[in-house]
Amino acid sequence: MTNSKKAGPVRPGGTIGILGGGQLGRMIALAAANYGLKVHVYAPDADSPAFDVAAAKTVAPYEDPQALAAFADSVDVVTYEFENIPHATAEILAQHATLHPNPRALLTTQDRLAEKRFVNGLGIPTAPFQAVDTAEDLADALDALGRPAVLKTRRFGYDGKGQRMIRDGDDAAALLAEFGGAPCILEGFVPFEREISVVAARGTDGAFAAYDPCANEHADHILALTRVPAPGLARATSDAAIAIAKKIAEALDYVGVLAVELFEVAGPAGAARLVVNEIAPRVHNSGHWTIEGATTSQFAQSVRAVCGWPLGDASRVGGLDVEMRNLIGDTVDDWPKILAEPGAHLHLYGKGDARPGRKMGHVTRLIRRRDS
Amino acid sequence: MTNSKKAGPVRPGGTIGILGGGQLGRMIALAAANYGLKVHVYAPDADSPAFDVAAAKTVAPYEDPQALAAFADSVDVVTYEFENIPHATAEILAQHATLHPNPRALLTTQDRLAEKRFVNGLGIPTAPFQAVDTAEDLADALDALGRPAVLKTRRFGYDGKGQRMIRDGDDAAALLAEFGGAPCILEGFVPFEREISVVAARGTDGAFAAYDPCANEHADHILALTRVPAPGLARATSDAAIAIAKKIAEALDYVGVLAVELFEVAGPAGAARLVVNEIAPRVHNSGHWTIEGATTSQFAQSVRAVCGWPLGDASRVGGLDVEMRNLIGDTVDDWPKILAEPGAHLHLYGKGDARPGRKMGHVTRLIRRRDS
Repeated sequence: MTNSKKAGPVRPGGTIGILGGGQLGRMIALAAANYGLKVHVYAPDADSPAFDVAAAKTVAPYEDPQALAAFADSVDVVTYEFENIPHATAEILAQHATLHPNPRALLTTQDRLAEKRFVNGLGIPTAPFQAVDTAEDLADALDALGRPAVLKTRRFGYDGKGQRMIRDGDDAAALLAEFGGAPCILEGFVPFEREISVVAARGTDGAFAAYDPCANEHADHILALTRVPAPGLARATSDAAIAIAKKIAEALDYVGVLAVELFEVAGPAGAARLVVNEIAPRVHNSGHWTIEGATTSQFAQSVRAVCGWPLGDASRVGGLDVEMRNLIGDTVDDWPKILAEPGAHLHLYGKGDARPGRKMGHVTRLIRRRDS
Repeated sequence: MTNSKKAGPVRPGGTIGILGGGQLGRMIALAAANYGLKVHVYAPDADSPAFDVAAAKTVAPYEDPQALAAFADSVDVVTYEFENIPHATAEILAQHATLHPNPRALLTTQDRLAEKRFVNGLGIPTAPFQAVDTAEDLADALDALGRPAVLKTRRFGYDGKGQRMIRDGDDAAALLAEFGGAPCILEGFVPFEREISVVAARGTDGAFAAYDPCANEHADHILALTRVPAPGLARATSDAAIAIAKKIAEALDYVGVLAVELFEVAGPAGAARLVVNEIAPRVHNSGHWTIEGATTSQFAQSVRAVCGWPLGDASRVGGLDVEMRNLIGDTVDDWPKILAEPGAHLHLYGKGDARPGRKMGHVTRLIRRRDS
C-alpha cells in the first residue's frame, strides 16, 4: 500500500501520531514534547483537549480512510489513547505506519468476549462468562452462572456504561433489550474484596517494567481514588499480579503501556487471590499517580515504548506512598483549594464543560508511609 | 487604549500569552497545559520550539505594534521568556494586557547599568562598575577599577556574548570598538570562588518562595552543571542569598519567577560572601532541576505567579540532592545513553540543528546525599 513505514527507533525531532484527543492523549503529548518529539493528534472533535498541545492535528472521523492514511503517512509511529477503534481503522493505520500497541492487542482488548477467552487461554482466571446475543442465550447464561450476574455489551463500555447487574426478580430480557441488540456477554458475579490494577510497559526489545500495583476505589462506576502501594497487599499477591500483566503483554507481543484491572478475592496470598477483570491497551487512569510518584511517568514510558526506546525506571520516587484522586464533574471547582494545598499536585485537562461524570482533572499527593 | 485587560486570577481554560518561543517558553507552556490553561506563543521565528506545544501562535517581529496588540488582547495575561524586549514592545503589551513581570522589572534587568544601580541602591553589593560609552570613558574606568576588568555591552548579552576581559597589555580601545558603539559598562574583576544562583518566585499577593540556592559551573561561558544544594554552602550564606532575592523581588513589585546570580567570594559565612552578578526576570536555566527535583517546578511556579494563583511548595522532593547538566551542541547525541541510564531524566527541546554552543536539552539526576 505504501512504503513510508519507518524502521528503527524514532529519533528526537520525530513525530508520534496519537489517535484520540482526550486527556490521555494530551498527557502523552506533554510527555512526548519533553523528549523533543512532535505530536500529531487525530480526533473527530475539533474541541479535543489534546489539540492544544499538539504540533499538528487532524479533525476527521475515525472512519475516514483518506484522512487516516494521510495521518499515518505523516508520522513516525502511531499509538492511541482509547481501545474502541474500528477494525478497519486499525488496519489502515497499520498499513501506513508502525502501530503500537499492535492491532491484535487492540482487537483482543476491545471485545470483552475475545479478551476473556484470551486471558483464560493463558491459564489466568476471569469471572465466569457466556456470550449473549439473544434473550435465549441470556436465559441459558443465567441458568449456568446464576444471579446476581452482570450483563455487559462486548464493546464500547467504559465507566460503567454498557453494563447492568441482573439480580433476583429482574426482567433479564428487558435489560438485554435496552442494549438494542448489541452483542453482549454475561459475567458471573465475583465476590471481590477490592479492585487492584497493574500498569506496566513492554518495549520493542521485549523488556517489561511494571509499576507497583495500586488499589482503586470507584464512585458511580468511575474511578475515584487510586492508592499505591495497594494498602496491605501481600507481596506474593503483588508479584502474582505483575506476573499476570507480564504474561498478557508477552502473549500479545505488546509494545506500549497497558493496564490490567484485577479483582482481589478471598483466599491465600498469591495468584489464587486474583481474577482479571479487564485489560486496557493504553495508559490508564489508575496510572496517573506516576507523573509525580514514579521516576518515569506512564506517559513518558508509553512514549519510550512506542518509539523503540529503552523503558524507564518504574520505581516510586523516594519510596513514598501516593494517592491520586479524580476530579469528576463539578468537583473540579475545588481547584483553588487544591492549588493552595502544600504538596498537592493539581492536573486539569482543559475541558470546558464540567458535566456530571466527566473527568476534568486529578490531584496527586505524595505521602509518608502510613505504616511507619 | 483598550479595556480588554482582565482583572483577578486567570481561570483554568484561560490563556497565557508568552513572548518568546525558545525552550523556556516551551517548558512554561507544558506547565500551563498541565493546569488546564491554553498558551499563545508570540515569536518572530516560525521554527520556534514553543510553537509545537502552544494552542495558538503569532509569528511576527517584536516590533510589530498591531501584532503585539492583537496578541495581548487575545490572552488573559502576558509573560515572557527572555528579557531583551524593546521598551516600546513592553509598553504596548502592558497597555493591552496584564504584563508579569512588570515593565519596570524588565527595564531594570535588561540593562546592566540600570540593574547594578538598582541593586546597589538596595544596599546589596555588585562588582564595582562604571558606564562606558567612549574610549575616554573606558580609560577613566580602567584607571578607577584597574585590570583585569570585564567590558560588557549594557544590553543583549547572554552566555558570554557581548563581554570581553581586559587584561594587562590589552588594547582596551580596540576591544571597545568591537562592540560597534553599543553602550557598555566596565565591571571590576571580582575574585569569586564560585557562582551560585537563587531561583525564586513572588505572587500577586506578595508571597515569596525560593528554591534552595544552587551552585553553577560554566564551560565556554555557558551553564554546564547546576548542583543543589550548593555543596558546602553555609546556611547563613544560603539564607542571605535568599534574602537578597526577596529584597530585589519586593523592590521591583515583582510577579513571576526570577533568578539572581551571585558570586560567592572569600569571607565569613553570610551576606558578606555575596555579590550580585545578574538578575534574570524569568525562569532560568539554573532552575531546570526543579522539574523533577522540587515539589513545584519553576515553570509551574511561574504559571501560578502570573495567573494570580497561590505559589506552590518550592522544597526539594524527598530532600534529595539534584544535579542538572546542560546538553550543549552535539553533546545531545548522547540521548540514547541517557535514556538507558536508570533514574536519569532527559529533556530535549525539539530544536533541529545542534550547533556548537546551542542549548539542546538537559538531564537531571536525583541523588542520595553526598555527605551521608
